[in-house]
Amino acid sequence: MISEKEFNSLIEKERKLINTKLKSVLAKRNPRSLYEPSDYILADQGKRLRPLLVLLTAKAVGGNYAKAYNAALAVEMLHNFTLVHDDIMDNADKRRNKLTVHIKYDVNTAILAGDGLLAVAYEYLLKNLIVPGNEVVKSFTKGLVEVCEGQSLDKEFEVKKDVSIEEYLIMISKKTAAMIEMCCEVGARIGGGSSSEIKALTRFGKNLGIAFQIQDDLLDIAGDEVEFGKKIGGDLIEGKKTFLFLKALEKSKGKDKAAFQKIIVNKGIQPGEVEKYKMLYQKLDVLNDAKKEIVLYTQKALRQLNQIKNVNDRQLLTFLAYSLIKRKY
Amino acid sequence: MISEKEFNSLIEKERKLINTKLKSVLAKRNPRSLYEPSDYILADQGKRLRPLLVLLTAKAVGGNYAKAYNAALAVEMLHNFTLVHDDIMDNADKRRNKLTVHIKYDVNTAILAGDGLLAVAYEYLLKNLIVPGNEVVKSFTKGLVEVCEGQSLDKEFEVKKDVSIEEYLIMISKKTAAMIEMCCEVGARIGGGSSSEIKALTRFGKNLGIAFQIQDDLLDIAGDEVEFGKKIGGDLIEGKKTFLFLKALEKSKGKDKAAFQKIIVNKGIQPGEVEKYKMLYQKLDVLNDAKKEIVLYTQKALRQLNQIKNVNDRQLLTFLAYSLIKRKY
Repeated sequence: MISEKEFNSLIEKERKLINTKLKSVLAKRNPRSLYEPSDYILADQGKRLRPLLVLLTAKAVGGNYAKAYNAALAVEMLHNFTLVHDDIMDNADKRRNKLTVHIKYDVNTAILAGDGLLAVAYEYLLKNLIVPGNEVVKSFTKGLVEVCEGQSLDKEFEVKKDVSIEEYLIMISKKTAAMIEMCCEVGARIGGGSSSEIKALTRFGKNLGIAFQIQDDLLDIAGDEVEFGKKIGGDLIEGKKTFLFLKALEKSKGKDKAAFQKIIVNKGIQPGEVEKYKMLYQKLDVLNDAKKEIVLYTQKALRQLNQIKNVNDRQLLTFLAYSLIKRKY
Repeated sequence: MISEKEFNSLIEKERKLINTKLKSVLAKRNPRSLYEPSDYILADQGKRLRPLLVLLTAKAVGGNYAKAYNAALAVEMLHNFTLVHDDIMDNADKRRNKLTVHIKYDVNTAILAGDGLLAVAYEYLLKNLIVPGNEVVKSFTKGLVEVCEGQSLDKEFEVKKDVSIEEYLIMISKKTAAMIEMCCEVGARIGGGSSSEIKALTRFGKNLGIAFQIQDDLLDIAGDEVEFGKKIGGDLIEGKKTFLFLKALEKSKGKDKAAFQKIIVNKGIQPGEVEKYKMLYQKLDVLNDAKKEIVLYTQKALRQLNQIKNVNDRQLLTFLAYSLIKRKY
């Protein structure tokens, strides 16, 4: 069976290859006024989780994953399209310690750069696409539709007073999980998976995506500022209705409940109050609730991998899932 | 042969059908925060030129155009996506005498509404798509890529001092003509056209699109304000580098040339100066130059229709081309 070390070296190699390929996607395209800002954000080397999922799921169904590279580039461009537009809507100045596109350039440039990224994403998805029928493009489009719907729900929740945990789960299923799900579905389809393999990997992606978002909520308060690349407690400061917040609101009583309700009314807290709310979270044990939920969804995801025959491929996807979830906190 | 009256009644019937179908596309979708603003712009009943082109080109190659309706809706949604985002970038308050989406709602809502429209456009394009292979989706995507590139060039030209007529033609080929071209290509492909029919209709669309944009430039100064739905001379006021402007700059000398160069430096003129510049245009005969250019590209377009065997279908496309170009001025 493949070791964690072998997994790490494979992932490192693939990540480099993806970065090299991404670099060449936009480098020679014109006009530069359109593609240079997109180049700027793509050069921002993230984890490349989504393209890695496309490649590893294509491999897991016995496919030649060399044929999945264009789709892998496409999902990364689609992901970056959402980042550029979301950063405008969220009024975010920085992402991974770099200025966001609309701050480095301007809002108009960022709108168009996002649109262009999405357009080129489809172009690459369709390039030498070997699967007959339009199922791959349909999966990709379903992911795009859902991510727009999820972002819209997220924006609605900013002003909605009573968001249930159920509604929150629907929102993150669309905003975060639908894209992870789509990557796995697209990979499985390009790899020529059977319908049961496609179904299993799609479910793997969806549950992994939900775990990933709750993990993201948890890291916001329990993460390491440097490693996480965001300000600790940022979600509280912005008054975001995260899993932790909604769980705390549900569990708390009296004075504590009033403290959380105040966040809704004031649409956030002062930076100086983060420590106080972190202690309230600990008192109510919602950090552990979140961890349990993450474990639950991760297990749901990993159970789907029983459909994957090759033990090494199963192991690779398991390692990738763990690497996503076991971020430090 | 089909008469203009028969053409008009067919077009009216199809336009109504398109409007009814467009209404139902987004009406029941959720979240409303995403789809309601898109509904608002789609309800703004334009000429529906692009979906009509999809239907009539599908018919022209002997196809059953009932099968092209989803694609027809898709191109109209794609077109409206560009309008919503362009209106933000152009800082436009009104379109067809209605508030633009980012004014009626806000910029964030408009960005996301545009993204959602594009996503649903792909969803409809792919719905029951009967053509094997991915050629239809590739044509559609090529149109999208080019319209983004064209918009970026248009924005570049706003600050570029020396734009040649050749550069202008490249810009409008992308910004306006690529989409008209794509509608014809998609229609011809869905209709099951031969490769020579597809090629001819694609060229028909491209040349028609160029004629259409120069006509648009001409109407800006020579059109009827109520009918055109825009302020007369708006392009001059905004300092847009239209065909008329670039031609005038090329032909003028001395004091007149200086007057046009002043527009570049000042990035536009005062509303009170429109009449003066209109007279300069007339003196330099650039209105007639534009008319000649429109006729040239229209003829280029119509010549392609020789590839269409059925005389009635050829006639329908000819009427549609004329209805586009013979707008009053």
